[in-house]
Amino acid sequence: MFKLVHQDKNSNARLGKLTTAQGEIDTPCFMPVGTHATIKGLYPKDVEEAGAQIMLSNTYHLFLRPGMEVIRKAGGLHKFISWHKPILTDSGGYQVFSLALLRKISDKGVEFQSHIDGTKHFFTPEDVIDIQRDLGSDIMMPLDECSHYPCIKDHAEVAMKRTIDWAKRSYKHKQEYKGGGPNRNQLLFGIVQGAVYADLRNICAKELVDIGFDGYAIGGVSVGEPTNLIYNILEITALVLPVQKPRYAMGIGYPPDILEAIGRGIDMFDCVVPTRYGRNGTAFTSAGKVKIGNSPYIEDFGSLDEGCSCYVCKNFSRAYLRHLFNAREMLGLTLLSLHNVYFFLDLMRKARKAIQENQFSEFKKEFLGNYNNSPCA
Amino acid sequence: MFKLVHQDKNSNARLGKLTTAQGEIDTPCFMPVGTHATIKGLYPKDVEEAGAQIMLSNTYHLFLRPGMEVIRKAGGLHKFISWHKPILTDSGGYQVFSLALLRKISDKGVEFQSHIDGTKHFFTPEDVIDIQRDLGSDIMMPLDECSHYPCIKDHAEVAMKRTIDWAKRSYKHKQEYKGGGPNRNQLLFGIVQGAVYADLRNICAKELVDIGFDGYAIGGVSVGEPTNLIYNILEITALVLPVQKPRYAMGIGYPPDILEAIGRGIDMFDCVVPTRYGRNGTAFTSAGKVKIGNSPYIEDFGSLDEGCSCYVCKNFSRAYLRHLFNAREMLGLTLLSLHNVYFFLDLMRKARKAIQENQFSEFKKEFLGNYNNSPCA
Repeated sequence: MFKLVHQDKNSNARLGKLTTAQGEIDTPCFMPVGTHATIKGLYPKDVEEAGAQIMLSNTYHLFLRPGMEVIRKAGGLHKFISWHKPILTDSGGYQVFSLALLRKISDKGVEFQSHIDGTKHFFTPEDVIDIQRDLGSDIMMPLDECSHYPCIKDHAEVAMKRTIDWAKRSYKHKQEYKGGGPNRNQLLFGIVQGAVYADLRNICAKELVDIGFDGYAIGGVSVGEPTNLIYNILEITALVLPVQKPRYAMGIGYPPDILEAIGRGIDMFDCVVPTRYGRNGTAFTSAGKVKIGNSPYIEDFGSLDEGCSCYVCKNFSRAYLRHLFNAREMLGLTLLSLHNVYFFLDLMRKARKAIQENQFSEFKKEFLGNYNNSPCA
Repeated sequence: MFKLVHQDKNSNARLGKLTTAQGEIDTPCFMPVGTHATIKGLYPKDVEEAGAQIMLSNTYHLFLRPGMEVIRKAGGLHKFISWHKPILTDSGGYQVFSLALLRKISDKGVEFQSHIDGTKHFFTPEDVIDIQRDLGSDIMMPLDECSHYPCIKDHAEVAMKRTIDWAKRSYKHKQEYKGGGPNRNQLLFGIVQGAVYADLRNICAKELVDIGFDGYAIGGVSVGEPTNLIYNILEITALVLPVQKPRYAMGIGYPPDILEAIGRGIDMFDCVVPTRYGRNGTAFTSAGKVKIGNSPYIEDFGSLDEGCSCYVCKNFSRAYLRHLFNAREMLGLTLLSLHNVYFFLDLMRKARKAIQENQFSEFKKEFLGNYNNSPCA
């Protein structure tokens, strides 16, 4: 299911191809996030056209709204949202810990109250697999317990051990269940927890590898810890993961973080940043971030990013985008979101090309030089 | 510039072709409205793909924001908004009377305060032509005085006479001005006023025809008067307008009103209804209006309108659109807006086909039968 295509000669960056029921994904890849069954503000066709090979959607949100009854009857998530490429669904674990109210965690599972209407729910690891079976995603994630930052080691160890236990139950449940879902060839990844503690990460990774997942995610990163700690966790964890399986850094992140992670051997990324920043009027460009509402752009008739080939950059000026943003027009937010998603996807295309040519470190250095040193960054 | 292609044998409906600097327009036509230099929530490419041959934009709004300095420097409105087909700009008259604060009207022109920031401005008929010259629209409208409903005849007469005077000044100013604008072949229409008084409408129309405009608009309709009065005004006014010039009913309207107007010899329409209703969760369909947030649609996996070929109907279910609307997702509003714009444009395509086949009355009857008698209308 995963083929290592090329290993960069001068870094840990690698080129891969992941095959799923709905199609192939070139890695390193970025997954735009469609929390409520929509990548906010964008038509699926435009996201596919921008080059997305896979998107992510959130089990917790879909379970609460529209609810599994509707998605089951629609024939699964792909049909419901009209997305024809692979989908990865998360386990809901992170959202239960960050969004839900009054959660109670035990070895059995997690009880929580909906952040929308306060209704009570209980997720076991088995439930979460069943939900994702009904969603029909191409890649499923098992329920895990994510530690906050900072987190004392004893607590991190308890969460890590529970994550391993739940991973085993998830794996077993997936092996045992028969039919019923719209997608018969779902992959299941393991999630490495262990907070900022190298030895815990190490133990967790090894135990998960023994179970034998289709890929491995590194969870509980980018939860408030300093950037160098994120890079460090990714690096040490990647080193104990099997070379022949895809590695996914959950919720990472900003362009520099993504490139640093690729250089440390990570293959898959997701983040809400492109659309969230777009809705707030910030564009990502090769010369850093552009806050489009700012006055220097009033009469700036250049495109957002001169070298960019997206629909937005080929058709609209910063002056027009600024006008839309200042007039509070939806179109401004959707155009910035589309550009940002394209920018992240294009960054991955360029990264893959650089790896293929054993030039990843040079590419990263040049990109970061332009991105970080611009006056508008 | 306008060619009468075919006259329906059984009604006053007619088929025409209007040629402008940016391209040809088949009439009867519907013009989606882009008030703030954007058809709310929609990419220009999608509106063009839906079949729009012309759009409308509002002089008053553009003048205030982003302001003429920006649009002049952008090289005109088409370039600024990346719209490659014809644009009609209104005169700002209607907005000055309906939106602006503290307006003072005299024969010289109209003083008003911006509804955005309270700044004071003065429009003469000549100013309004100059502004539209700089916008570079393909069809310009002269400043007019629009009466409210109800309006006593004496007041309506004063407004009508001022409208004629301003129309003469506008025409003269356009004849005299030299260069400067991005579009050298702009058309100028006259606007017939006269409230609900047939004799006033008659006088106004004849005086405007004597001036010799490129087309004629019927203004001051759909301002609160009963529907049968709207139809009546359109009918009697159309009868005194020249056969060989396009006729435009400003701000009309709902699908039934548009069809009734076509049957009375009107060629051009504009209205904010498709996008405004879309943003409020209402879709126009051949079986009437659908309020997508309603509970019957929770598990309705059919498309908005079974016979519709738009992107939305080909890809998404009512259940999905309802989910998006209820989760307050932007995508729900943009998809409904896109469908609605397509629906209006498609209605015009069907109307044109019916006229060509001398079947307009039958087409109208069948459409209205389906549209008005549906349980969800």
